[in-house]
Amino acid sequence: MTPLPLALTMGEPAGIGPEITIAAWRAVRAAGPVFFLIGDPALLPGAPLALIERPEQAADAFPEALPVLPLSLAAPAVPGRLDPRNAPAVIAAIEQAVAFARAGRAGGVVTNPIQKSVLTAAGFPHPGHTEFLGELAGTGVPPVMMLACPGLRVVPVTIHVSLKRAAAELTTAAIVTQGLVVAEALRRDFGIAAPRLVVAGLNPHAGEDGTMGREDIEIVAPAVAALRAQGIAVRGPLPADTLFTPRARATYDCALCMYHDQALIPVKTLDMDGGVNVTLGLSIVRTSPDHGTALDIAGNGLADPGSLIAALRMAADMARHRAEGAAA
Amino acid sequence: MTPLPLALTMGEPAGIGPEITIAAWRAVRAAGPVFFLIGDPALLPGAPLALIERPEQAADAFPEALPVLPLSLAAPAVPGRLDPRNAPAVIAAIEQAVAFARAGRAGGVVTNPIQKSVLTAAGFPHPGHTEFLGELAGTGVPPVMMLACPGLRVVPVTIHVSLKRAAAELTTAAIVTQGLVVAEALRRDFGIAAPRLVVAGLNPHAGEDGTMGREDIEIVAPAVAALRAQGIAVRGPLPADTLFTPRARATYDCALCMYHDQALIPVKTLDMDGGVNVTLGLSIVRTSPDHGTALDIAGNGLADPGSLIAALRMAADMARHRAEGAAA
Repeated sequence: MTPLPLALTMGEPAGIGPEITIAAWRAVRAAGPVFFLIGDPALLPGAPLALIERPEQAADAFPEALPVLPLSLAAPAVPGRLDPRNAPAVIAAIEQAVAFARAGRAGGVVTNPIQKSVLTAAGFPHPGHTEFLGELAGTGVPPVMMLACPGLRVVPVTIHVSLKRAAAELTTAAIVTQGLVVAEALRRDFGIAAPRLVVAGLNPHAGEDGTMGREDIEIVAPAVAALRAQGIAVRGPLPADTLFTPRARATYDCALCMYHDQALIPVKTLDMDGGVNVTLGLSIVRTSPDHGTALDIAGNGLADPGSLIAALRMAADMARHRAEGAAA
Repeated sequence: MTPLPLALTMGEPAGIGPEITIAAWRAVRAAGPVFFLIGDPALLPGAPLALIERPEQAADAFPEALPVLPLSLAAPAVPGRLDPRNAPAVIAAIEQAVAFARAGRAGGVVTNPIQKSVLTAAGFPHPGHTEFLGELAGTGVPPVMMLACPGLRVVPVTIHVSLKRAAAELTTAAIVTQGLVVAEALRRDFGIAAPRLVVAGLNPHAGEDGTMGREDIEIVAPAVAALRAQGIAVRGPLPADTLFTPRARATYDCALCMYHDQALIPVKTLDMDGGVNVTLGLSIVRTSPDHGTALDIAGNGLADPGSLIAALRMAADMARHRAEGAAA
């Protein structure tokens, strides 16, 4: 079965998206995965582009030129300079990519970084990509953000809230709901028949029997029990500081973390070959690089395409697992 | 100038201290640093021991046998089995080691792990080693705990409290006080003439301009300003998730972290050659391995002496820097 091409959105046109896109194409043009860009061809002056009209044309063009499904910007993009006039095209690229994936014409969606502030100023009502994708391709559960690098997958159960709010608003239900989504995604999208989860404690030493906070006893432990009652192989709450050593990492497929930095510090500290941001719980496959628009270096040719390349490869792997599962 | 020997305490006699002590001696007997154990010789049956009466005898004996300054236990130690009757000797070993260092007869104190619960049950009033050492060898400032591995030094400004309390009780004064101790110790004990500090934000993305918590603006930033006003090269508050990448780590000598896991996750995730726990702000040099007593594997010969060896080497380096500074 020939894999479907991946749909890559242009993201913020003033950011590093265009240059890492062409660099990623150069890196994978020979071996794949095949992808096509939804964006303005003017973003890549001088690059070998193949303008296409349909995703189905991407594979033939791919070895020789980056396939681009044209979507015009309202104003010429200048690296590093945000322009709210281009926000509608940025949003439209995401919508088109999702539509192709939902229609079975793209294997998945890979998104270049967007600049939330400029989209918000243009009336975009969502806090970010993940929530927007939840609306476009949700499955009735809140989408779950996973960060993955070789040897480590983590999910922050609470994300963009203050540490105080993360501690105050953590619930058993949130841990359980996300744990279920993660376990299902590890089976369906990652080909792991019997996923092994761990749950990090909120407090130092996972609270050390309640002497450093009661949340691990009262909130986290019941979530672990509930997940186990659902048949999931899960351990926790475990002390977070020793959860990411090489030896510990080998014992699980994904760690559920209680707050943003607990999840992101280990992934970024390891810095292995580009971390990838994966959205679980959607009807489609979606990945993205784990960095931002890097406006300060956009256009300089300094941007590292490693994370985008890893995101493309991961999306292709996930799409393959989904297709194999559907065919089985 | 011949370096002074290091004083190593026996720590919990039922833990892995005895076996990692003899393993560390085997690893460094040829090249040093010279150290002597303060403890019961019966803990190391069959090992080549040299019973000494004074620290000054350690160096001559060291290449051929582990020098031991005998301190008898009240009851025979059984690996894995705690015995409160031995608590007084565990405490006495720490007191003797500190006394030798304070008297200029030992270059510094390296402590094997203790089991707090058994000491507490025996009437030991201190939460741990660090506080006890602060009483025995304090300098008027609260001792500061630093964790160090090759390429990374971190200090948790709050330590063994719940995450909620860490967020609620963080103060500008605590960050400033510890920052000053750290900067002075980096100069005096680590030979870094112009130490570069960074301060991690408490909240994700260091609060992102206050949208995810005000503490980074109201508590952390003023501390950074105050440290800078004291002439210290310091940056922050910086987002914690990107503060421990290889590139970021190269830009500073120590990171002040706002809570336990923010500091310990990166050190333990990197897992480089044994992390070391260092107490700064004492009148003496003090290091220890960054692990516990590991009662579950004690006596099996499975314990890894890497962290103790690193702790001995770091103490020797610190003692050398102090001596050179004092001689200059």
